[in-house]
Amino acid sequence: MSVLVVGSVALDSVETPFGEREDVLGGSATYFSASASLLTKVAVVGVVGEDFPLHQLQFLERRGVDLAGLERVKGKTFRWKGRYGFDLNQAQTLETHLNVFESFDPKLSPAACAAERLFLGNIDPELQLRVLDQVARPRLVCADTMNYWIGSKRQKLLELLPRVDVLMVNDGEVRQLAGESNVLRAAAAAQKMGARAVVVKRGEYGALLAVPGETFYAPAFPLHDVVDPTGAGDSFAGGFLGLLDRLDDGGPGALRQAVVMGSTIASFTVEQFSLDRLRDLSLAQVRQRFAEFRSLTHFEELPGHVA
Amino acid sequence: MSVLVVGSVALDSVETPFGEREDVLGGSATYFSASASLLTKVAVVGVVGEDFPLHQLQFLERRGVDLAGLERVKGKTFRWKGRYGFDLNQAQTLETHLNVFESFDPKLSPAACAAERLFLGNIDPELQLRVLDQVARPRLVCADTMNYWIGSKRQKLLELLPRVDVLMVNDGEVRQLAGESNVLRAAAAAQKMGARAVVVKRGEYGALLAVPGETFYAPAFPLHDVVDPTGAGDSFAGGFLGLLDRLDDGGPGALRQAVVMGSTIASFTVEQFSLDRLRDLSLAQVRQRFAEFRSLTHFEELPGHVA
Repeated sequence: MSVLVVGSVALDSVETPFGEREDVLGGSATYFSASASLLTKVAVVGVVGEDFPLHQLQFLERRGVDLAGLERVKGKTFRWKGRYGFDLNQAQTLETHLNVFESFDPKLSPAACAAERLFLGNIDPELQLRVLDQVARPRLVCADTMNYWIGSKRQKLLELLPRVDVLMVNDGEVRQLAGESNVLRAAAAAQKMGARAVVVKRGEYGALLAVPGETFYAPAFPLHDVVDPTGAGDSFAGGFLGLLDRLDDGGPGALRQAVVMGSTIASFTVEQFSLDRLRDLSLAQVRQRFAEFRSLTHFEELPGHVA
Repeated sequence: MSVLVVGSVALDSVETPFGEREDVLGGSATYFSASASLLTKVAVVGVVGEDFPLHQLQFLERRGVDLAGLERVKGKTFRWKGRYGFDLNQAQTLETHLNVFESFDPKLSPAACAAERLFLGNIDPELQLRVLDQVARPRLVCADTMNYWIGSKRQKLLELLPRVDVLMVNDGEVRQLAGESNVLRAAAAAQKMGARAVVVKRGEYGALLAVPGETFYAPAFPLHDVVDPTGAGDSFAGGFLGLLDRLDDGGPGALRQAVVMGSTIASFTVEQFSLDRLRDLSLAQVRQRFAEFRSLTHFEELPGHVA
């Protein structure tokens, strides 16, 4: 079993009501691989600039993440700067500098081409397609996207969707993609466009999974302290795909467990800035919170006399 | 078993993106009793004016609701006028006319005083206390309130809370009551003020139950069509207390089922304007959606090898 992720490895500057950090570790591939590597073997495809502090990725290598596909090229690393108010569901992007990502042309190693499960992080759909074309026989493809691509690269996205098993987007993105304000209807529309399943991430309100014939909803794990929501979505994706890979199963039951695993790991991510909480997180801690998640949502059937 | 509700019986004028209605049936006691009466015996304490179209309550009588405690007095019925945008979670109140409610002094009949479970709808905490004082030996007391009372009648509310088993409020209300933005912490603070359990209603995002030592979260039932959210909270309360009364149980397991029952019935309410969907709703339909709710949120434990 193995998971391949293509996405950004970045330096983030973040401001939340609980503090601020400058040029700290971030990026979709980073959060994804830190999460997924708790559960399975992960390889990263991406690019950083000469200014990138590579030693900050040592904890990933210790967790077995294959960073051979992370190119280091001339120029500056991708940077994102954002701010959150007390409504932690909505980031305000202050700056985005693609830098070395602008001319990124992913070329996969033979090992990477053999990956069984693939996460196409939120990058240009053209790049997503170029990566997908190189993977020989993926058993499960999961893709993220964002408002910018839905608006500017819609055709490429529509080309991608029929090749995607799980489209993973937030409320606003699925609404924009479908041109429909009701989230259930929007997810159904995305399925008509070709995605076999759709996961709608709803921030602190949880996540909805739509697969043919059924719907599943997991709330977000209620937390006493949320410090920085950055990376929650990619951590979710990492837990989701990491579990499916570990289970080697893409059936409806496994997908439900994978949504909960995604929510579980994301709930750790937001407890601290950057990847600080993920760095030393253990699978035992994850497993315990997964069990608490069951207790959080479990209820019995009604007894017979309520009929 | 029996439930007593004190609250408003009103005429509402509502505008949503999906239409508008003028002077239609509304009020907390109305929604509550329409919902709870699907599950148990309900009696209403309230007041209407001479202008109130009493025949509109006939469906409640057919369902066995005891309306003997609904006074009809000189003057005009309580009226509320509100508007919802596409974000159906937030009503904008345009007008509130207390009318006959202004001088309402509830006097309970001997039968009403013997009620086992009590719902104190969102009215002046002084009135809530005056009703509670008259009920001889309530086994479970559930109370709603709102920002207006939290601000203007805080002392009376603090007097009420230690006598309340379940405080049922929304996000904003529990935050205001506790002076704390984190919902979990705010619920814990409300418990310190005396409420044994707290249910935080979060609109389309579900409901959180905090009881000593455990937390339960039920998402809202995902719907393809939400037409008018008015009355969702009181329908929730009706399903919640109605089920507890029918089960004759206030333990943690029953409280969880009651939250889901509340969400289930509220999910019908919002599918049409006013009480239109509740009028002909059957317990069989409710039971079926409750079962769908289980399928919506159920997931298996992780297998042993994910450890």
